[in-house]
Amino acid sequence: MKSTSMKQRIIDSAAFLFNTKGYDGTTVREIAKRTNCNVANISYYFGNKEGLLEYLVSSYLEGYLAIIERAYIELDSRSSRECLLLAIRGIMNYQKENRHLTRFVLREITLDTTLIREIMTTYLTKEKYYFQAIFETGIKQQEFSHIPIPYAIMQLKGMLSMPYLHPQYMSEVLHIMPYEMYVTEQYSREIEKWVNYTICVHTQKAIDTFTPIPVNI
Amino acid sequence: MKSTSMKQRIIDSAAFLFNTKGYDGTTVREIAKRTNCNVANISYYFGNKEGLLEYLVSSYLEGYLAIIERAYIELDSRSSRECLLLAIRGIMNYQKENRHLTRFVLREITLDTTLIREIMTTYLTKEKYYFQAIFETGIKQQEFSHIPIPYAIMQLKGMLSMPYLHPQYMSEVLHIMPYEMYVTEQYSREIEKWVNYTICVHTQKAIDTFTPIPVNI
Repeated sequence: MKSTSMKQRIIDSAAFLFNTKGYDGTTVREIAKRTNCNVANISYYFGNKEGLLEYLVSSYLEGYLAIIERAYIELDSRSSRECLLLAIRGIMNYQKENRHLTRFVLREITLDTTLIREIMTTYLTKEKYYFQAIFETGIKQQEFSHIPIPYAIMQLKGMLSMPYLHPQYMSEVLHIMPYEMYVTEQYSREIEKWVNYTICVHTQKAIDTFTPIPVNI
Repeated sequence: MKSTSMKQRIIDSAAFLFNTKGYDGTTVREIAKRTNCNVANISYYFGNKEGLLEYLVSSYLEGYLAIIERAYIELDSRSSRECLLLAIRGIMNYQKENRHLTRFVLREITLDTTLIREIMTTYLTKEKYYFQAIFETGIKQQEFSHIPIPYAIMQLKGMLSMPYLHPQYMSEVLHIMPYEMYVTEQYSREIEKWVNYTICVHTQKAIDTFTPIPVNI
Protein backbone atom coordinates (compact mmCIF):
# COMPACT_ATOMS: atom_id res chain seq x y z
CA MET A 1 0.00 0.00 0.00
CA LYS A 2 2.76 2.35 1.01
CA SER A 3 4.80 1.57 -2.09
CA THR A 4 1.84 2.17 -4.44
CA SER A 5 1.28 5.56 -2.96
CA MET A 6 4.98 6.40 -3.25
CA LYS A 7 4.88 5.46 -6.94
CA GLN A 8 1.85 7.66 -7.52
CA ARG A 9 3.45 10.54 -5.65
CA ILE A 10 6.55 10.30 -7.85
CA ILE A 11 4.31 10.37 -10.93
CA ASP A 12 2.46 13.45 -9.71
CA SER A 13 5.69 15.30 -8.89
CA ALA A 14 7.19 14.42 -12.25
CA ALA A 15 4.09 15.49 -14.18
CA PHE A 16 4.06 18.79 -12.36
CA LEU A 17 7.78 19.49 -12.79
CA PHE A 18 8.01 18.36 -16.44
CA ASN A 19 5.08 20.60 -17.18
CA THR A 20 6.37 23.72 -15.44
CA LYS A 21 10.14 23.41 -15.93
CA GLY A 22 10.20 21.19 -19.00
CA TYR A 23 11.55 17.66 -19.24
CA ASP A 24 15.12 18.80 -19.92
CA GLY A 25 14.98 21.39 -17.16
CA THR A 26 13.96 18.85 -14.49
CA THR A 27 16.39 16.60 -12.62
CA VAL A 28 15.66 13.31 -10.89
CA ARG A 29 16.97 14.93 -7.71
CA GLU A 30 14.27 17.62 -7.95
CA ILE A 31 11.57 15.03 -8.49
CA ALA A 32 12.83 13.16 -5.42
CA LYS A 33 12.89 16.37 -3.39
CA ARG A 34 9.34 17.29 -4.34
CA THR A 35 8.14 13.74 -3.62
CA ASN A 36 10.05 13.76 -0.36
CA CYS A 37 11.75 10.47 -1.23
CA ASN A 38 15.21 9.23 -2.23
CA VAL A 39 16.56 9.15 -5.75
CA ALA A 40 16.86 5.38 -5.19
CA ASN A 41 13.05 5.12 -4.94
CA ILE A 42 12.69 6.64 -8.37
CA SER A 43 15.33 4.29 -9.78
CA TYR A 44 13.50 1.36 -8.22
CA TYR A 45 10.18 2.11 -9.96
CA PHE A 46 11.21 3.75 -13.19
CA GLY A 47 14.94 3.19 -13.76
CA ASN A 48 15.84 6.73 -14.74
CA LYS A 49 14.24 9.98 -15.94
CA GLU A 50 13.64 8.53 -19.40
CA GLY A 51 11.85 5.58 -17.85
CA LEU A 52 9.65 7.93 -15.88
CA LEU A 53 8.85 9.92 -19.00
CA GLU A 54 7.95 6.77 -20.91
CA TYR A 55 5.73 5.61 -18.09
CA LEU A 56 3.92 8.96 -17.86
CA VAL A 57 3.28 9.22 -21.56
CA SER A 58 2.31 5.57 -22.01
CA SER A 59 -0.12 5.43 -19.12
CA TYR A 60 -1.68 8.71 -20.21
CA LEU A 61 -2.12 7.49 -23.77
CA GLU A 62 -3.50 4.13 -22.63
CA GLY A 63 -6.27 5.87 -20.72
CA TYR A 64 -6.87 8.16 -23.68
CA LEU A 65 -7.07 5.27 -26.13
CA ALA A 66 -9.44 3.33 -23.87
CA ILE A 67 -11.98 6.13 -24.31
CA ILE A 68 -11.83 6.11 -28.08
CA GLU A 69 -11.92 2.32 -28.10
CA ARG A 70 -15.11 2.39 -26.02
CA ALA A 71 -16.70 4.71 -28.58
CA TYR A 72 -15.50 2.43 -31.37
CA ILE A 73 -17.02 -0.66 -29.74
CA GLU A 74 -20.35 1.17 -29.52
CA LEU A 75 -20.47 1.12 -33.34
CA ASP A 76 -22.22 -2.25 -32.88
CA SER A 77 -25.20 -0.69 -31.19
CA ARG A 78 -25.19 3.03 -31.95
CA SER A 79 -25.00 5.34 -34.94
CA SER A 80 -21.60 6.57 -36.10
CA ARG A 81 -22.58 10.10 -35.19
CA GLU A 82 -23.35 9.05 -31.62
CA CYS A 83 -20.04 7.16 -31.41
CA LEU A 84 -18.11 10.17 -32.65
CA LEU A 85 -19.86 12.42 -30.15
CA LEU A 86 -19.15 9.87 -27.39
CA ALA A 87 -15.46 9.94 -28.29
CA ILE A 88 -15.39 13.76 -28.29
CA ARG A 89 -17.12 14.07 -24.92
CA GLY A 90 -14.94 11.32 -23.47
CA ILE A 91 -11.71 12.90 -24.69
CA MET A 92 -12.69 16.35 -23.46
CA ASN A 93 -13.43 14.94 -19.99
CA TYR A 94 -10.28 12.85 -19.89
CA GLN A 95 -8.17 15.83 -20.89
CA LYS A 96 -9.80 17.97 -18.26
CA GLU A 97 -9.30 15.37 -15.52
CA ASN A 98 -5.63 15.04 -16.43
CA ARG A 99 -4.88 18.56 -17.45
CA HIS A 100 -1.23 18.75 -16.38
CA LEU A 101 -0.41 15.51 -18.13
CA THR A 102 -2.51 16.41 -21.15
CA ARG A 103 -0.66 19.66 -21.58
CA PHE A 104 2.67 17.94 -21.17
CA VAL A 105 1.94 15.03 -23.50
CA LEU A 106 0.42 17.23 -26.21
CA ARG A 107 3.49 19.42 -26.15
CA GLU A 108 5.84 16.46 -26.17
CA ILE A 109 4.08 15.14 -29.26
CA THR A 110 4.95 18.36 -31.09
CA LEU A 111 8.64 17.56 -30.61
CA ASP A 112 10.51 15.07 -32.72
CA THR A 113 12.48 13.15 -30.09
CA THR A 114 13.59 9.58 -30.65
CA LEU A 115 12.46 8.54 -27.18
CA ILE A 116 8.92 9.66 -27.76
CA ARG A 117 8.51 8.88 -31.45
CA GLU A 118 8.05 5.13 -31.03
CA ILE A 119 5.53 5.32 -28.22
CA MET A 120 3.61 7.97 -30.11
CA THR A 121 3.50 6.07 -33.34
CA THR A 122 2.14 2.97 -31.60
CA TYR A 123 -0.62 4.74 -29.70
CA LEU A 124 -1.51 7.26 -32.35
CA THR A 125 -1.77 4.54 -34.97
CA LYS A 126 -4.37 2.80 -32.81
CA GLU A 127 -6.15 6.11 -32.26
CA LYS A 128 -6.26 6.63 -36.01
CA TYR A 129 -7.62 3.10 -36.48
CA TYR A 130 -10.59 3.76 -34.18
CA PHE A 131 -11.38 7.18 -35.60
CA GLN A 132 -11.08 5.86 -39.12
CA ALA A 133 -13.45 2.97 -38.38
CA ILE A 134 -16.03 5.39 -36.98
CA PHE A 135 -15.76 7.71 -39.98
CA GLU A 136 -15.79 4.85 -42.49
CA THR A 137 -18.87 3.30 -40.92
CA GLY A 138 -20.61 6.66 -40.98
CA ILE A 139 -19.80 7.17 -44.65
CA LYS A 140 -20.81 3.63 -45.55
CA GLN A 141 -24.15 3.99 -43.78
CA GLN A 142 -24.66 7.37 -45.47
CA GLU A 143 -24.79 9.11 -42.14
CA PHE A 144 -21.62 11.07 -42.86
CA SER A 145 -20.88 12.86 -46.09
CA HIS A 146 -17.91 11.79 -48.20
CA ILE A 147 -15.27 13.44 -46.09
CA PRO A 148 -11.58 12.78 -46.68
CA ILE A 149 -10.94 10.93 -43.41
CA PRO A 150 -7.31 11.91 -42.62
CA TYR A 151 -8.26 15.58 -42.93
CA ALA A 152 -11.28 15.13 -40.70
CA ILE A 153 -9.03 13.50 -38.09
CA MET A 154 -6.64 16.43 -38.33
CA GLN A 155 -9.43 18.94 -37.85
CA LEU A 156 -10.84 17.04 -34.92
CA LYS A 157 -7.47 16.63 -33.20
CA GLY A 158 -6.62 20.27 -33.82
CA MET A 159 -9.83 21.40 -32.16
CA LEU A 160 -9.53 18.97 -29.24
CA SER A 161 -5.95 19.87 -28.37
CA MET A 162 -6.30 23.65 -28.68
CA PRO A 163 -7.30 24.39 -25.04
CA TYR A 164 -4.34 22.43 -23.67
CA LEU A 165 -1.76 23.75 -26.08
CA HIS A 166 -2.81 27.37 -25.61
CA PRO A 167 -4.22 27.91 -22.11
CA GLN A 168 -2.50 31.32 -21.72
CA TYR A 169 -3.88 32.45 -25.03
CA MET A 170 -7.37 31.46 -23.96
CA SER A 171 -7.23 33.17 -20.60
CA GLU A 172 -5.25 36.27 -21.56
CA VAL A 173 -6.52 37.00 -25.05
CA LEU A 174 -9.94 35.37 -25.34
CA HIS A 175 -10.71 35.80 -21.64
CA ILE A 176 -12.16 32.34 -21.16
CA MET A 177 -10.82 30.05 -18.48
CA PRO A 178 -9.60 26.92 -20.25
CA TYR A 179 -10.22 24.50 -17.38
CA GLU A 180 -13.61 25.69 -16.17
CA MET A 181 -16.39 23.16 -16.46
CA TYR A 182 -18.71 25.43 -18.46
CA VAL A 183 -15.92 26.26 -20.91
CA THR A 184 -15.18 22.59 -21.55
CA GLU A 185 -18.87 21.90 -22.01
CA GLN A 186 -19.49 24.81 -24.32
CA TYR A 187 -16.41 23.98 -26.36
CA SER A 188 -17.52 20.34 -26.67
CA ARG A 189 -20.88 21.54 -27.98
CA GLU A 190 -19.13 23.67 -30.59
CA ILE A 191 -17.11 20.70 -31.78
CA GLU A 192 -20.34 18.70 -31.87
CA LYS A 193 -21.79 21.30 -34.20
CA TRP A 194 -18.91 20.58 -36.56
CA VAL A 195 -19.92 16.90 -36.45
CA ASN A 196 -23.61 17.67 -36.94
CA TYR A 197 -23.29 20.24 -39.68
CA THR A 198 -19.99 19.58 -41.45
CA ILE A 199 -19.46 15.84 -41.08
CA CYS A 200 -23.04 14.57 -41.21
CA VAL A 201 -24.96 14.40 -44.45
CA HIS A 202 -26.85 17.63 -44.92
CA THR A 203 -30.51 17.07 -45.16
CA GLN A 204 -32.93 19.75 -44.09
CA LYS A 205 -34.51 17.20 -41.80
CA ALA A 206 -31.25 16.48 -40.01
CA ILE A 207 -30.60 20.18 -39.52
CA ASP A 208 -34.11 20.82 -38.22
CA THR A 209 -33.89 18.10 -35.61
CA PHE A 210 -30.63 19.23 -34.01
CA THR A 211 -31.26 20.98 -30.73
CA PRO A 212 -30.32 24.65 -31.04
CA ILE A 213 -27.26 25.55 -28.99
CA PRO A 214 -27.66 28.46 -26.56
CA VAL A 215 -25.78 31.61 -27.51
CA ASN A 216 -22.96 32.54 -25.18
CA ILE A 217 -20.73 35.24 -26.63
CA MET B 1 23.32 45.44 -49.89
CA LYS B 2 25.89 43.13 -48.35
CA SER B 3 24.71 43.92 -44.83
CA THR B 4 21.04 43.24 -45.63
CA SER B 5 21.91 39.86 -46.99
CA MET B 6 24.02 39.09 -43.91
CA LYS B 7 21.07 39.98 -41.67
CA GLN B 8 18.75 37.72 -43.64
CA ARG B 9 21.26 34.88 -43.55
CA ILE B 10 21.50 35.17 -39.77
CA ILE B 11 17.70 35.02 -39.58
CA ASP B 12 17.54 31.92 -41.75
CA SER B 13 20.24 30.13 -39.74
CA ALA B 14 18.57 31.00 -36.46
CA ALA B 15 15.13 29.86 -37.67
CA PHE B 16 16.59 26.57 -38.80
CA LEU B 17 18.61 25.94 -35.62
CA PHE B 18 15.90 27.05 -33.18
CA ASN B 19 13.53 24.75 -34.96
CA THR B 20 15.74 21.67 -35.04
CA LYS B 21 17.74 22.04 -31.81
CA GLY B 22 15.33 24.22 -29.84
CA TYR B 23 15.92 27.78 -28.67
CA ASP B 24 17.66 26.70 -25.45
CA GLY B 25 19.77 24.14 -27.26
CA THR B 26 21.15 26.67 -29.76
CA THR B 27 24.10 28.98 -29.06
CA VAL B 28 24.92 32.29 -30.75
CA ARG B 29 28.23 30.71 -31.72
CA GLU B 30 26.41 27.97 -33.64
CA ILE B 31 24.24 30.51 -35.43
CA ALA B 32 27.39 32.43 -36.39
CA LYS B 33 29.06 29.24 -37.60
CA ARG B 34 26.10 28.25 -39.75
CA THR B 35 25.84 31.78 -41.16
CA ASN B 36 29.60 31.85 -41.74
CA CYS B 37 29.91 35.15 -39.89
CA ASN B 38 31.28 36.44 -36.58
CA VAL B 39 29.38 36.52 -33.31
CA ALA B 40 29.93 40.29 -33.47
CA ASN B 41 27.73 40.50 -36.59
CA ILE B 42 24.87 38.93 -34.70
CA SER B 43 25.38 41.30 -31.77
CA TYR B 44 25.38 44.22 -34.20
CA TYR B 45 21.98 43.40 -35.68
CA PHE B 46 20.15 41.73 -32.84
CA GLY B 47 22.04 42.34 -29.59
CA ASN B 48 21.90 38.81 -28.25
CA LYS B 49 20.03 35.54 -28.72
CA GLU B 50 16.93 36.93 -27.01
CA GLY B 51 16.96 39.87 -29.40
CA LEU B 52 17.16 37.50 -32.33
CA LEU B 53 14.25 35.47 -30.98
CA GLU B 54 12.15 38.59 -30.50
CA TYR B 55 12.94 39.72 -34.01
CA LEU B 56 12.05 36.36 -35.55
CA VAL B 57 8.77 36.04 -33.70
CA SER B 58 7.75 39.68 -34.21
CA SER B 59 8.47 39.79 -37.91
CA TYR B 60 6.72 36.46 -38.43
CA LEU B 61 3.64 37.65 -36.55
CA GLU B 62 3.60 40.99 -38.36
CA GLY B 63 3.38 39.23 -41.71
CA TYR B 64 0.75 36.90 -40.30
CA LEU B 65 -1.34 39.77 -38.95
CA ALA B 66 -1.11 41.68 -42.22
CA ILE B 67 -2.98 38.84 -43.90
CA ILE B 68 -5.83 38.82 -41.42
CA GLU B 69 -5.96 42.61 -41.52
CA ARG B 70 -6.34 42.48 -45.30
CA ALA B 71 -9.29 40.12 -44.91
CA TYR B 72 -10.75 42.40 -42.25
CA ILE B 73 -10.49 45.47 -44.50
CA GLU B 74 -12.38 43.59 -47.21
CA LEU B 75 -15.43 43.61 -44.90
CA ASP B 76 -16.23 46.95 -46.60
CA SER B 77 -16.76 45.34 -49.96
CA ARG B 78 -17.29 41.61 -49.43
CA SER B 79 -19.44 39.28 -47.38
CA SER B 80 -18.19 38.11 -43.98
CA ARG B 81 -18.01 34.58 -45.27
CA GLU B 82 -15.74 35.64 -48.13
CA CYS B 83 -13.55 37.59 -45.70
CA LEU B 84 -13.24 34.61 -43.40
CA LEU B 85 -12.35 32.34 -46.31
CA LEU B 86 -9.80 34.93 -47.51
CA ALA B 87 -8.19 34.92 -44.06
CA ILE B 88 -8.08 31.11 -43.97
CA ARG B 89 -6.54 30.79 -47.44
CA GLY B 90 -4.09 33.59 -46.67
CA ILE B 91 -2.98 32.06 -43.38
CA MET B 92 -2.57 28.60 -44.89
CA ASN B 93 -0.37 30.03 -47.64
CA TYR B 94 1.65 32.18 -45.29
CA GLN B 95 2.26 29.23 -42.99
CA LYS B 96 3.32 27.08 -45.89
CA GLU B 97 5.71 29.71 -47.25
CA ASN B 98 7.31 30.11 -43.82
CA ARG B 99 7.03 26.59 -42.57
CA HIS B 100 10.17 26.48 -40.40
CA LEU B 101 9.26 29.72 -38.69
CA THR B 102 5.59 28.74 -38.41
CA ARG B 103 6.49 25.52 -36.68
CA PHE B 104 8.87 27.33 -34.36
CA VAL B 105 6.53 30.21 -33.50
CA LEU B 106 3.52 27.94 -32.95
CA ARG B 107 5.53 25.80 -30.59
CA GLU B 108 6.94 28.81 -28.76
CA ILE B 109 3.39 30.08 -28.21
CA THR B 110 2.57 26.86 -26.36
CA LEU B 111 5.24 27.74 -23.79
CA ASP B 112 4.71 30.22 -21.01
CA THR B 113 7.96 32.21 -21.14
CA THR B 114 8.15 35.78 -19.97
CA LEU B 115 10.12 36.84 -23.03
CA ILE B 116 7.46 35.63 -25.43
CA ARG B 117 4.33 36.37 -23.44
CA GLU B 118 4.32 40.11 -24.08
CA ILE B 119 4.93 39.92 -27.81
CA MET B 120 2.30 37.21 -28.10
CA THR B 121 -0.32 39.09 -26.18
CA THR B 122 0.14 42.18 -28.35
CA TYR B 123 -0.09 40.38 -31.68
CA LEU B 124 -2.67 37.83 -30.70
CA THR B 125 -4.92 40.52 -29.28
CA LYS B 126 -4.90 42.22 -32.67
CA GLU B 127 -5.52 38.89 -34.36
CA LYS B 128 -8.50 38.34 -32.09
CA TYR B 129 -9.79 41.84 -32.90
CA TYR B 130 -9.84 41.15 -36.64
CA PHE B 131 -11.39 37.70 -36.34
CA GLN B 132 -13.97 39.00 -33.90
CA ALA B 133 -14.93 41.85 -36.25
CA ILE B 134 -15.40 39.39 -39.11
CA PHE B 135 -17.53 37.06 -36.99
CA GLU B 136 -19.56 39.91 -35.47
CA THR B 137 -20.29 41.41 -38.87
CA GLY B 138 -21.37 38.01 -40.16
CA ILE B 139 -23.70 37.48 -37.22
CA LYS B 140 -25.11 41.00 -37.48
CA GLN B 141 -25.80 40.59 -41.19
CA GLN B 142 -27.39 37.20 -40.49
CA GLU B 143 -24.85 35.48 -42.66
CA PHE B 144 -23.36 33.56 -39.72
CA SER B 145 -25.40 31.76 -37.09
CA HIS B 146 -25.20 32.88 -33.46
CA ILE B 147 -21.87 31.29 -32.72
CA PRO B 148 -20.02 32.02 -29.47
CA ILE B 149 -17.12 33.90 -31.05
CA PRO B 150 -14.20 32.98 -28.72
CA TYR B 151 -14.97 29.30 -29.23
CA ALA B 152 -15.15 29.71 -32.98
CA ILE B 153 -11.73 31.41 -32.89
CA MET B 154 -10.35 28.50 -30.86
CA GLN B 155 -11.69 25.95 -33.29
CA LEU B 156 -10.32 27.86 -36.24
CA LYS B 157 -6.88 28.34 -34.72
CA GLY B 158 -6.76 24.71 -33.63
CA MET B 159 -7.47 23.55 -37.16
CA LEU B 160 -5.05 26.00 -38.78
CA SER B 161 -2.11 25.17 -36.53
CA MET B 162 -2.50 21.38 -36.57
CA PRO B 163 -0.28 20.65 -39.63
CA TYR B 164 2.60 22.68 -38.19
CA LEU B 165 2.38 21.38 -34.66
CA HIS B 166 2.15 17.76 -35.76
CA PRO B 167 4.00 17.23 -39.04
CA GLN B 168 5.46 13.86 -37.92
CA TYR B 169 2.04 12.65 -36.89
CA MET B 170 0.66 13.61 -40.29
CA SER B 171 3.38 11.92 -42.28
CA GLU B 172 3.94 8.84 -40.11
CA VAL B 173 0.44 8.06 -38.90
CA LEU B 174 -1.96 9.63 -41.39
CA HIS B 175 0.44 9.21 -44.32
CA ILE B 176 -0.15 12.65 -45.77
CA MET B 177 2.74 14.97 -46.43
CA PRO B 178 2.07 18.12 -44.40
CA TYR B 179 3.87 20.55 -46.69
CA GLU B 180 2.70 19.31 -50.08
CA MET B 181 0.68 21.80 -52.11
CA TYR B 182 -2.29 19.45 -52.62
CA VAL B 183 -2.42 18.66 -48.91
CA THR B 184 -2.52 22.33 -47.97
CA GLU B 185 -5.22 22.96 -50.55
CA GLN B 186 -7.36 20.02 -49.55
CA TYR B 187 -7.03 20.89 -45.90
CA SER B 188 -8.04 24.50 -46.61
CA ARG B 189 -11.14 23.23 -48.37
CA GLU B 190 -12.03 21.10 -45.37
CA ILE B 191 -11.74 24.11 -43.07
CA GLU B 192 -13.88 26.05 -45.54
CA LYS B 193 -16.56 23.39 -45.17
CA TRP B 194 -16.61 24.17 -41.46
CA VAL B 195 -17.22 27.82 -42.37
CA ASN B 196 -19.90 26.97 -44.90
CA TYR B 197 -21.79 24.39 -42.91
CA THR B 198 -21.13 25.11 -39.25
CA ILE B 199 -20.56 28.85 -39.11
CA CYS B 200 -22.92 30.08 -41.83
CA VAL B 201 -26.65 30.18 -41.27
CA HIS B 202 -28.16 26.93 -42.41
CA THR B 203 -30.65 27.43 -45.11
CA GLN B 204 -31.29 24.72 -47.63
CA LYS B 205 -30.52 27.26 -50.33
CA ALA B 206 -27.10 28.04 -48.90
CA ILE B 207 -26.26 24.37 -48.66
CA ASP B 208 -27.43 23.68 -52.20
CA THR B 209 -25.34 26.44 -53.70
CA PHE B 210 -22.02 25.38 -52.19
CA THR B 211 -19.87 23.65 -54.71
CA PRO B 212 -19.43 20.02 -53.72
CA ILE B 213 -15.88 19.20 -52.66
CA PRO B 214 -14.21 16.31 -54.52
CA VAL B 215 -13.64 13.20 -52.44
CA ASN B 216 -10.01 12.38 -51.80
CA ILE B 217 -9.59 9.73 -49.14
